[in-house]
Amino acid sequence: MRTRPLKVALLGCGVVGSEVARIMTTHADDLAQRIGAPIELAGVAVRRPSKVREGIDPSLVTTDATALVKRGDIDVVVEVIGGIEPARTLITTAFEHGASVVSANKALLAQDGAALHAVAEQHGKDLYYEAAVAGAIPLIRPLRESLAGDKVNRVLGIVNGTTNFILDKMDSTGAGYQEALDEATALGYAEADPTADVEGFDAAAKAAILAGIAFHSRVRLDDVYREGMTEVTAADFASAKNMGCTIKLLAICERAGDGGSVTARVHPAMIPLTHPLASVRGAYNAVFVESDASGQLMFYGPGAGGAPTASAVLGDLVAVCRNRLSGATGPGESAYAALPVSPMGDVVTRYHISLDVADKPGVLAQVATVFAEHGVSIDTVRQTGKDGEASLVVVTHRASDASLSGTVEALRKLDTVRGVASIMRVEGE
Amino acid sequence: MRTRPLKVALLGCGVVGSEVARIMTTHADDLAQRIGAPIELAGVAVRRPSKVREGIDPSLVTTDATALVKRGDIDVVVEVIGGIEPARTLITTAFEHGASVVSANKALLAQDGAALHAVAEQHGKDLYYEAAVAGAIPLIRPLRESLAGDKVNRVLGIVNGTTNFILDKMDSTGAGYQEALDEATALGYAEADPTADVEGFDAAAKAAILAGIAFHSRVRLDDVYREGMTEVTAADFASAKNMGCTIKLLAICERAGDGGSVTARVHPAMIPLTHPLASVRGAYNAVFVESDASGQLMFYGPGAGGAPTASAVLGDLVAVCRNRLSGATGPGESAYAALPVSPMGDVVTRYHISLDVADKPGVLAQVATVFAEHGVSIDTVRQTGKDGEASLVVVTHRASDASLSGTVEALRKLDTVRGVASIMRVEGE
Repeated sequence: MRTRPLKVALLGCGVVGSEVARIMTTHADDLAQRIGAPIELAGVAVRRPSKVREGIDPSLVTTDATALVKRGDIDVVVEVIGGIEPARTLITTAFEHGASVVSANKALLAQDGAALHAVAEQHGKDLYYEAAVAGAIPLIRPLRESLAGDKVNRVLGIVNGTTNFILDKMDSTGAGYQEALDEATALGYAEADPTADVEGFDAAAKAAILAGIAFHSRVRLDDVYREGMTEVTAADFASAKNMGCTIKLLAICERAGDGGSVTARVHPAMIPLTHPLASVRGAYNAVFVESDASGQLMFYGPGAGGAPTASAVLGDLVAVCRNRLSGATGPGESAYAALPVSPMGDVVTRYHISLDVADKPGVLAQVATVFAEHGVSIDTVRQTGKDGEASLVVVTHRASDASLSGTVEALRKLDTVRGVASIMRVEGE
Repeated sequence: MRTRPLKVALLGCGVVGSEVARIMTTHADDLAQRIGAPIELAGVAVRRPSKVREGIDPSLVTTDATALVKRGDIDVVVEVIGGIEPARTLITTAFEHGASVVSANKALLAQDGAALHAVAEQHGKDLYYEAAVAGAIPLIRPLRESLAGDKVNRVLGIVNGTTNFILDKMDSTGAGYQEALDEATALGYAEADPTADVEGFDAAAKAAILAGIAFHSRVRLDDVYREGMTEVTAADFASAKNMGCTIKLLAICERAGDGGSVTARVHPAMIPLTHPLASVRGAYNAVFVESDASGQLMFYGPGAGGAPTASAVLGDLVAVCRNRLSGATGPGESAYAALPVSPMGDVVTRYHISLDVADKPGVLAQVATVFAEHGVSIDTVRQTGKDGEASLVVVTHRASDASLSGTVEALRKLDTVRGVASIMRVEGE
């Protein structure tokens, strides 16, 4: 075993960074054995140097992250700052000064992954980011290595723990959205401003990364259709239960049409209780992958948290250090397939539509006609009425999102339709 | 991209081998892009050359596997023959003649993994075997790469699809073992001679491989305690249901005592219905991994079958080919921790014991005294009686297997105990 240590610079020392530093210290011997050389924490860039950081030598702490990544003797830069800048510039600078990079930065990878991979490749360095998607769950590596000989057709994932906690709570207790959100906030599962989670921005970034890797194509954050889950109601859960379903916020990446394009989207959806994703509880994450040869795989685990995310970072760190020692690099960006991303209108799925209608003869016929005119075939209709008002729940066969949108627009114009109470996609069947 | 192809020799062209050859042909362009060079099927060693093999050039087929691996121009040998010999000699010969090896051979890896890794390392070649454990499920790579920076404490897996199909059938229909086995045989899930599956030999080989990788130690097949599932009864399932459990054949590898040793075992066990492994249906496999930092992870998918196993083989093939091109090798055997394997008697778990006893006063006191004398603490007792006979179901707190064995031996000597109807471990709590 080589005795000269590999030098690691840590950018950021918050919840994840401090766990990375802790494990690097407490598991130093194991890491050395697994890498084939010891690793040494060579510097820690932070914003607030005065904060006491247990177990970290104060002489390693600096506020000058740029100087740290420019030192030239750093083997691996671990970036756990998050956000676009200064992370992007620091990573680029790190590559230019001879370091490889391990990042947990989903927002940056989703937005600028291609450019960062290009810089890494130009300098013959590694860019690893297992921690950017679904925390501790090994997902990037299985997708880009284990399934490298297979053809992935679909990735269906619960990739945001906050929203899964809220939806699970609504499902199990009958609580409304706000009540469940309040509990998530009180327990620390939701941030003070939960927008990034509940509006699906976080999941959309992960969907872009997953789609790119799964389909060997570039999928930008802007390519991902996004709907949040703030409008999911207790009534939706009741409807889902009637169908033997539950509701999850899903990130769905799939081949579209004849496979010549792909789609990526994030929205709440009903899935059957028999689907393995339906039983993913609390703040856990899980990703279901469908491939030609391997069939259906699922990867399950904690999607966030300091220690789980640090585990993913350290797995990458060991791999990148091993690559440094052998003079090789791991798999870089694989975007050769260059499949275009189709718009949401091309997505084909089933729909659960809840309508408030006038309770009089002929309404069902009118509604059914609108569906037929838009080429949307109806699977089941359930009609319940009281006090001159009735509710119609329509579940469709598979139809394009464009056809469904057209249908709903036309339905809204019917005098007998008082309102469209909810539209929800039905997935995983 | 390099245009000169990497040469692949295929040993065995059965259910898995023919799928490997098919995917190599149909996905040739994708594989070339992902590897960075085309791959070429350079030879296929079979036992029965006269058998028609669709899509395989007959001029590539040979019965002389030894000559094929000795050719010297083979980059990667894919071994899907199975069994110990001639696979072992062929793999060794392949390394000696400059090839790397991808194998799906669990029996061989469990028995001779250390020796084969040593030969691979001596010749600077790769030995990959993702397909040897749990078919298509990425498991070896996540354990030895993604979790390389973590400390795995326990691996709990359903790693045999045949027995899971049988147990799931017994659970869902109330069928007895023989009836469920007959159905598994009729549907092709069980072989004509199901011994390797139902007696746990297959799962034990996988447990040895998983334990070795998870704990960075050598765990031999002989180190794995093994009990089959042929004696699980419909009554056991009824008892399990009473406890909110189901029964699975589990492979369990865990750190023992203070972490200075490990244990590996295969046996039927009750697990709570709330455990993610409880809902693994039919012939699916799933492996639950508990680690210090990442917490609880689960990997789920098809554990057998031609195409799924071929997917795992091809993922390895891509990785090994990439390593050939970069002149590096992937992670080899990691056995530095050299943890000893403790005997089954040291395993600590809970037990569900069903006793047939005389229905008279004082029996419970007698039985409870025996447990106490052996240091086994009782959690719950349920007594049901009829016609002078009674049944006592005892669930213990955690105790060592040795203490439990001593307890059962002493119970059998009590006049009032007519028989020990079943003993089952309770896991996953």
